[in-house]
Amino acid sequence: MIKSKELIAENLTRGTGGELLLAGVSVCAMAKKYGTPLYLYDEDRIRERCRTYRYAMGDAFGEGGFQVHYASKAASFKRIYEIMREENMGIDVVSVGEIYTAMRAGFDLDRAVFHSNNKTDADIEFAIENGVGTFVVDGREELLCIDRIAKEMGKDGQVRVLLRLTPGIDPHTYEAVATGRVDSKFGAAIATGQAMELTELALSLSGVVLQGFHCHIGSMVFDSQVYLDSASVMLEFVAEVNERHHFMAKILDLGGGYGVRYIESQPEIDIAENIREVGAHIHAECDRLGIPCPIIAMEPGRSIVADAALTVYTVGSVKHIRGYKSYVSVDGGMTDNPRFALYRSPYTVTTVEREVGENAFPCSVVGRCCESGDILQENVMMPEDICRGELIACLTTGAYNYSMASNYNRIPRPPVVMLSGGEDYLAVRRETPADVSALDV
Amino acid sequence: MIKSKELIAENLTRGTGGELLLAGVSVCAMAKKYGTPLYLYDEDRIRERCRTYRYAMGDAFGEGGFQVHYASKAASFKRIYEIMREENMGIDVVSVGEIYTAMRAGFDLDRAVFHSNNKTDADIEFAIENGVGTFVVDGREELLCIDRIAKEMGKDGQVRVLLRLTPGIDPHTYEAVATGRVDSKFGAAIATGQAMELTELALSLSGVVLQGFHCHIGSMVFDSQVYLDSASVMLEFVAEVNERHHFMAKILDLGGGYGVRYIESQPEIDIAENIREVGAHIHAECDRLGIPCPIIAMEPGRSIVADAALTVYTVGSVKHIRGYKSYVSVDGGMTDNPRFALYRSPYTVTTVEREVGENAFPCSVVGRCCESGDILQENVMMPEDICRGELIACLTTGAYNYSMASNYNRIPRPPVVMLSGGEDYLAVRRETPADVSALDV
Repeated sequence: MIKSKELIAENLTRGTGGELLLAGVSVCAMAKKYGTPLYLYDEDRIRERCRTYRYAMGDAFGEGGFQVHYASKAASFKRIYEIMREENMGIDVVSVGEIYTAMRAGFDLDRAVFHSNNKTDADIEFAIENGVGTFVVDGREELLCIDRIAKEMGKDGQVRVLLRLTPGIDPHTYEAVATGRVDSKFGAAIATGQAMELTELALSLSGVVLQGFHCHIGSMVFDSQVYLDSASVMLEFVAEVNERHHFMAKILDLGGGYGVRYIESQPEIDIAENIREVGAHIHAECDRLGIPCPIIAMEPGRSIVADAALTVYTVGSVKHIRGYKSYVSVDGGMTDNPRFALYRSPYTVTTVEREVGENAFPCSVVGRCCESGDILQENVMMPEDICRGELIACLTTGAYNYSMASNYNRIPRPPVVMLSGGEDYLAVRRETPADVSALDV
Repeated sequence: MIKSKELIAENLTRGTGGELLLAGVSVCAMAKKYGTPLYLYDEDRIRERCRTYRYAMGDAFGEGGFQVHYASKAASFKRIYEIMREENMGIDVVSVGEIYTAMRAGFDLDRAVFHSNNKTDADIEFAIENGVGTFVVDGREELLCIDRIAKEMGKDGQVRVLLRLTPGIDPHTYEAVATGRVDSKFGAAIATGQAMELTELALSLSGVVLQGFHCHIGSMVFDSQVYLDSASVMLEFVAEVNERHHFMAKILDLGGGYGVRYIESQPEIDIAENIREVGAHIHAECDRLGIPCPIIAMEPGRSIVADAALTVYTVGSVKHIRGYKSYVSVDGGMTDNPRFALYRSPYTVTTVEREVGENAFPCSVVGRCCESGDILQENVMMPEDICRGELIACLTTGAYNYSMASNYNRIPRPPVVMLSGGEDYLAVRRETPADVSALDV
């Protein structure tokens, strides 16, 4: 598989000299201004994606009939939450760190849903104290804790909860991102009866207010069928709870996860069309089951931010091991993008100052860590005469790159620069060696 | 494979009530004092390991005939460099971040060797300016850069270099840590003639002073044979360079990498005995080749710090999915220890306040990240009645845990607490949500 010749998102173009442009802005100019490695985001693309989801959900479920929560673990920093606030999005947060950052951005936490399979007592207290709107409860122990803490804080009956359930759907994606199967670490399984037990417990408690149910079948889903299947399973459960306990769920949260096109061979997903299909299916299922349609929530993360960004690197060395293979090494790597190391994730890697052209050789693009596994991508085509100093870009790095970055090898994390309407600004500053050592006593 | 019943290092014991002790100190007391998750290090064990290497290398190669450099990427923070300074160790550094941290510890950088397959011009300038003793040069482009910068800085003939070569040895270990093969991203291959070309280039330059050669065949090596093989290949190369170019290497650096016992089924390595064996082999090879024995350097990292530490966690939930499997989730995970997620690395996980005992069930111990792949270990035995609030420990986490930690999900990194002579002190403070958001503009 030979990659890197094609630009894979609409916001990527080449100038007349072959130079790479993101949102019409010269990537090379940005690298010169801010240095490398550099995460470069197209803010307008993020806003466009938010609107795509919100408009399609509005069409499918009507004003007041839907919620769209940005799954902020995909890319979590202050500026992202400001954009989400301005776009009238909700947010999905998974830690006090994310809540704290959203607070700094002035985000109204009533529109936040608090996930995680393991919230500590301190997390729960912090979230209640700061007015986080809804907890997505992962299991029995946590539900009892939230209920107890709500009462202790004098918030009886004010803490809204959704119960996370596993519908038993296998999304046929990579194991690490498949979370809707019965044996998932997340939620309570419908198939084993544990989801109903958790529901009955929630209905019996006075500290919490049950709002409905949540499921998430995985990330990188290209096939709407899994959404249709999980919606059916979840709505059947909603109907059963209604019949048995006269509790009609107000909210059904179907989680996130439309896939993103990282390489040419992956499909481009028409998000609006997919949501129309899911909407029609849900209305039909509600009719069949004789229940009103709950408010339908979605939690896209990756598909909001992934193709809004790329990472720019400077080549440090080019190595041809005669008779074996070639390497192009860059001034970043698994520290700013661990996804190949973790999942062997595919990415498109290309040159910045010119097109790759015809005279190209296949190589591994590797990072600067003292570790053989520090690979950004294999089988990339690079120009014959590439050498130390040339800029290259790894495309579609807006999701799960900055948020998963580490200081392995004490390498500082790159800055995040945003482009909007042809202007650039710093959203996250470059980390320094002093920052990296700041916690050392 | 069922783990967690056995303590696997000498510094781990159980008290009369079954409570876990590290270096004789109650792990539970430390968790109460500093909170969880918590990296707890036995400083005396680190010092003992340094001395094991230094004494064995001294016995094998004589005073002045050896160097031991701690490969600081295994665990890099200020206090570690202070300990290395006090133990008369050299250090192996791979970035400006590590150099900066060593400087803060008052480490004499003349005893530092600067690795990395990709040093930027700024890195090279910083290292020369601050007196880093030796560069381990990865390839031709870098060699030319160091030479040029040395001249530009008026340091002609003062910048000492070792050339990193690949002897073509496959250590039969996990791919990501196998770095001595011909097709490695590191160094110049002897087999292709490129090592000799690089040597000839180094000898022709006036900015740098060639000191000798370096190789590193990988991490987690349990079999001395690979060291013997690589020493033979490297010494043959040294002899050939001497014969062809009348350059006799002063230093031969064999890299690092004795394996560490993570689980009961792995062998315990007698480091001193292994070094004796390598020493005898090297002397015999030098005699056979008719060359004097160079100064022999080693770069242990993992084996210095790994079994000096453990990580303490608090259980957040216990989930039995009837008919499927069980999970115990903790308040840390892939953010503080990504090694299972990256390599499926084995670890021993056990209870802290009591022994696991007979009434135990097999489970996956998972982290708190919103990701199915956030697994610390599979097939761990945990007590039947374990529940939210109990402490558990993951053993042998001293290497490549803190140094590889991330803020994924905006989860702050745990503190590092050191034990020495029964006393405890903070070496790295706990990160806060404000720290995590500090770079946000």
